[in-house]
Amino acid sequence: METNSSGGGSSSGSLGSSSTMILHNAVIVTMDKESRVFRNGGVFVVQDRIKAIGQSADILQQFSQMADQIIDLQSQILLPVGFVNTHVHTSQQLAKGIADDVDLMTWLHDRIWPYESNMTEEDSYISTLLCGIELIHSGVTCFAEAGGQHVSEMAKAVELLGLRACLVQSTMDCGEGLPASWAVRTTDDCIQSQKELYAKHHHAADGRIRIWFGIRQIMNATDRLLLETRDMAREFKTGIHMHVAEIPYENQVVMDTRKVDHGTVTFLDKIEFLQNNLLSAHTVWVNHTEIGLLSRAGVKVSHCPASAMRMLGFAPIKEMLHADICVSLGTDGAPSNNRMSIVDEMYLASLINKGREVFANGTTDPAALPAETVLRMATINGAKSVLWDNDIGSLEAGKKADMVVVDPFSWPMVPVHDRITSLVYCMRTENVVSVMCNGQWVMKNKKILTVDEREIISAARQASDELLKRAGITIPNRMNVL
Amino acid sequence: METNSSGGGSSSGSLGSSSTMILHNAVIVTMDKESRVFRNGGVFVVQDRIKAIGQSADILQQFSQMADQIIDLQSQILLPVGFVNTHVHTSQQLAKGIADDVDLMTWLHDRIWPYESNMTEEDSYISTLLCGIELIHSGVTCFAEAGGQHVSEMAKAVELLGLRACLVQSTMDCGEGLPASWAVRTTDDCIQSQKELYAKHHHAADGRIRIWFGIRQIMNATDRLLLETRDMAREFKTGIHMHVAEIPYENQVVMDTRKVDHGTVTFLDKIEFLQNNLLSAHTVWVNHTEIGLLSRAGVKVSHCPASAMRMLGFAPIKEMLHADICVSLGTDGAPSNNRMSIVDEMYLASLINKGREVFANGTTDPAALPAETVLRMATINGAKSVLWDNDIGSLEAGKKADMVVVDPFSWPMVPVHDRITSLVYCMRTENVVSVMCNGQWVMKNKKILTVDEREIISAARQASDELLKRAGITIPNRMNVL
Repeated sequence: METNSSGGGSSSGSLGSSSTMILHNAVIVTMDKESRVFRNGGVFVVQDRIKAIGQSADILQQFSQMADQIIDLQSQILLPVGFVNTHVHTSQQLAKGIADDVDLMTWLHDRIWPYESNMTEEDSYISTLLCGIELIHSGVTCFAEAGGQHVSEMAKAVELLGLRACLVQSTMDCGEGLPASWAVRTTDDCIQSQKELYAKHHHAADGRIRIWFGIRQIMNATDRLLLETRDMAREFKTGIHMHVAEIPYENQVVMDTRKVDHGTVTFLDKIEFLQNNLLSAHTVWVNHTEIGLLSRAGVKVSHCPASAMRMLGFAPIKEMLHADICVSLGTDGAPSNNRMSIVDEMYLASLINKGREVFANGTTDPAALPAETVLRMATINGAKSVLWDNDIGSLEAGKKADMVVVDPFSWPMVPVHDRITSLVYCMRTENVVSVMCNGQWVMKNKKILTVDEREIISAARQASDELLKRAGITIPNRMNVL
Repeated sequence: METNSSGGGSSSGSLGSSSTMILHNAVIVTMDKESRVFRNGGVFVVQDRIKAIGQSADILQQFSQMADQIIDLQSQILLPVGFVNTHVHTSQQLAKGIADDVDLMTWLHDRIWPYESNMTEEDSYISTLLCGIELIHSGVTCFAEAGGQHVSEMAKAVELLGLRACLVQSTMDCGEGLPASWAVRTTDDCIQSQKELYAKHHHAADGRIRIWFGIRQIMNATDRLLLETRDMAREFKTGIHMHVAEIPYENQVVMDTRKVDHGTVTFLDKIEFLQNNLLSAHTVWVNHTEIGLLSRAGVKVSHCPASAMRMLGFAPIKEMLHADICVSLGTDGAPSNNRMSIVDEMYLASLINKGREVFANGTTDPAALPAETVLRMATINGAKSVLWDNDIGSLEAGKKADMVVVDPFSWPMVPVHDRITSLVYCMRTENVVSVMCNGQWVMKNKKILTVDEREIISAARQASDELLKRAGITIPNRMNVL
């Protein structure tokens, strides 16, 4: 038996895991139904699952004999999951900084579409790897891809990274101004390619990968695509990921062309597309009636605070939570946000929704979206949103061993007077020291174990420069460069 | 002559400085009047000042013979100043997490006033040291204290930290519900104690410390205090730091008691308090006329995005900038924000002011407050706001050697397609590797050289626990702690 400190030490297996392991002497924020927090807790992990959780002394007494490895976390904080990022375009990571401070039409037509339509499979692979590095450093163990072009390459990257993911193809079968290579795709192409991806990758990588069905957004989807996607997802028992009600213009187009009296959500209700396997991203421009429709159908909402503030507007998150909608957190893609960090999104979600009350009700509400609510959004609500809460989202016996070790003793978090607000408002990526997914250490003491970080960064710099050249994207200088 | 890489290497002098030094092979963002950016630039530093700046090759050729030390920055980014934090309560650092998610009255009466009025001189010293650590890691070289109780202890801490600061006493001579020890202070006490602080500390620490005059806020200031402060600051040729127009209630009280038709700014104009040495913090609830008054008088505004979103509302920053008001960035204090990081405030300032357009004009404006504007707010505008722009705020020959080295080659910033947006939106505190103030390295390769970080963190944890006990402040549990 080995005894180590602080998430470090020697290990067996390619990812530095042991088949049985005790982590003890940790503040454990379980996020379970009773919202239990152990001041000095321990967990017993067998392979990829948590077998027991409790007070350190009890766990040590009961399981020390069976443990290959015992790790003293020295009063660091152990978080479940870690975080679930429920809306991230991993293919857009190489596009960081290509579309800042420009209007929406320039953003889409002159930057993002040329970028995405010129990506090679290799670009997509590197982009997902690079994004994965940022996700791991930010304490994310599971994410929902928002839709990209080369899903098999994403899957390859996720398998290597050691993360858990719901992958989705960017799916469009109509719409104006699309790049030529996309405009030729028929509804049948869209359906067929997704079925093939499902057959090939669903439950791959020791069950860490799931394939979902995608709708990019309503203005790029025929009714037939929507209906077949709805039925196919039900048949395959998987989820649907779709951008919903992002801008007022979208609602207007839906009202004009699809003959409903409000917008996307009203129309989706009419065709019975709203179901409890729908992950509705953004969902900013919805009225009171539509919040009711989402709630009744059990639709999950991915709130992306940074991207909403920058591009879309204020989503009525407080009202959605009040209507018992499961709201989780997403970062969106790099050209919509620049920071792929749920750590920062937690801080933003709280700030922005406190401030939004001025917009909605005339005065800020510093008590809106308290820290415990935000932490729930980033963990257990994230797990529910990706339809994986039977396995992840809280630290409980029987669930998967997905965990994050947070060091609260360095400058961003000192002093800790309120553990929960400290995690949500003070914590920065600096504090995320170790990450475990599916019982395997993915990062240990700030070092990513699954991939070579430097090598990926180097490949990403080169690939992204070449991609921009190929796509004919030039970024104007903002200053006088000599 | 020594030749080192990456801001490291051996050194002479207690802070690791040499009397003459070349830094070269850097992307230099000068923030000078011509907005020059050198792709491969160098600076020649003699003691505390920049003697020359230009292309690396030219600087090396001209000054290598005279340099004690030559440092190759290996294409890292060199920023001037670094950042100026124009509104920070360093005394509140030990109060991180004591007042999250509570309404404003609970915040003030049950948490902040008991905390501040129970601080010892030693608490204040430790608090400023701890805050200084966070400021340095965030690339700040100069800050404007927003007002605390024990200015001499702050000065002692600033001297040790190696930073540059404008210090201010928290000054109140009236107001309801004040803690007993504060309620007895007369106008004369307030004036006298500030004159003494000025005599004792102005220009101390090799000129790094300046003493300003403070007004906490209008509801805690008599007209006599305002007028004498105005005249005293003019006589002493220094600045005034004041919280202005924070909440609608403040404006209402001013209208009711001081007989003006709008609020604080209108009243301050009436008594000729608005002058170009006034640093007006927050300044959220001002109308169009008042923006004109601030602009004409040359008043500087400290915009604190996080604190505004959480507690106050949307400041009309775009309108202020349009009216040529010098707007800079502040973090406010730890219990109003939790993150004392101008790096995060830059990201927030851009996001929030893009989103604010929904509130002001019905739709977001992704082009509002572009990155170059935000970077100016954090650097040269900061320097102007603290009345120090003849010495700092841009990298120019003749100015003080205050600089920050940023590593753009690690995961938060890769790939860099737009240097300026990458600094403003992607950079995180992880990327701030070295900080120089007044020609001295304060942090080098992430290690703070001026103080013992671990020792201060340990002292801060103990002092803050004891202070909360003494002040009778208890923080309710948010979860089920076992």
